[in-house]
Amino acid sequence: MPNIPTRPVSLVHVDYPSWVEGVVDWNGHYGTDEEKMHLAISIARQNVLASTGGPFGAAVFESETGRLISVGMNSVVRLNNSTLHAEMVAFMTAQARLGSYTLAGADMPAHELFSTCEPCAMCLGATLWSGVRRVVCGATREDVESLQFDEGPVFPASYRYLEERGVQVTRSVLREDARDVLNLYRDMSGPIYNG
Amino acid sequence: MPNIPTRPVSLVHVDYPSWVEGVVDWNGHYGTDEEKMHLAISIARQNVLASTGGPFGAAVFESETGRLISVGMNSVVRLNNSTLHAEMVAFMTAQARLGSYTLAGADMPAHELFSTCEPCAMCLGATLWSGVRRVVCGATREDVESLQFDEGPVFPASYRYLEERGVQVTRSVLREDARDVLNLYRDMSGPIYNG
Repeated sequence: MPNIPTRPVSLVHVDYPSWVEGVVDWNGHYGTDEEKMHLAISIARQNVLASTGGPFGAAVFESETGRLISVGMNSVVRLNNSTLHAEMVAFMTAQARLGSYTLAGADMPAHELFSTCEPCAMCLGATLWSGVRRVVCGATREDVESLQFDEGPVFPASYRYLEERGVQVTRSVLREDARDVLNLYRDMSGPIYNG
Repeated sequence: MPNIPTRPVSLVHVDYPSWVEGVVDWNGHYGTDEEKMHLAISIARQNVLASTGGPFGAAVFESETGRLISVGMNSVVRLNNSTLHAEMVAFMTAQARLGSYTLAGADMPAHELFSTCEPCAMCLGATLWSGVRRVVCGATREDVESLQFDEGPVFPASYRYLEERGVQVTRSVLREDARDVLNLYRDMSGPIYNG
């Protein structure tokens, strides 16, 4: 295997594509679920149009004020990292910004995740550890799987597990708009990296 | 909230603690499951002793040759990032080293993950996307939960889901040694960051 570096690459970087500054208004007013989801969908769409990743976007907000803390976009292929789904990027960058491994710190307001699609098994588990108190989804598992993306071992009991631990789940907010981005990706023949 | 930076921190770094070079022999011979698990347990133990994270270690190997590709250690508190369980760090750094978002690339040998404990819901999902063909675990879910760590929504059907997609699962390799590290962490009163 001559192509493997003889010493390990121990440093991994996660950053946003450069288009983020043009798409995201960091001081914008995000008052309603629809306004918050609209931002996540804008990110997913731009990720497809710029060919920087899969058709998935996410954002973390303070629940009460609507203050935008972080965004996320699927970055698996761009950064050669299978863990970098949109939700994961949003969690990591929110925690980096706040300097905390949990978004449910003792002196913190409640936070919520908006994701353009129902989370896969990895992201559902990560949601629990992130400290968000609410998850809001756009497109459904069926919408995602119709594109041949696998969602992994997520069951009705998985959602119940979160809800029993105080994480509220809201589904199908702007589902049609989120699905449009999936269709755009299909029409542009984007890669299915975990089919 | 005066303590939140006004602009987002979009860059996240993931690296190993400096003790890794003293604990890991990158050119060592890892021939058996026990030798591979022993390395993962050494990493978990050093992570506890050096107070760099939770009592969990992992490593990715080429299945046939036993070549060590990457290691991982729980880095949640050290790097303020709830996604950085040992398995996640091992996947990310393996993929960074190989320059591929999957460890099951067309021209690649098979890879396997060794983890000192059965994976949580996030890491089980991530295993599926990582491209490893086998997961080998030390301590059990019950061992981990006895320390008040939550493992999240993992069910027997979750493991079946992986196995049906060609990921082999082997459990309880050096379970007692892996459990000793959990007990060491408890005795040192390490933080339970997702209890």
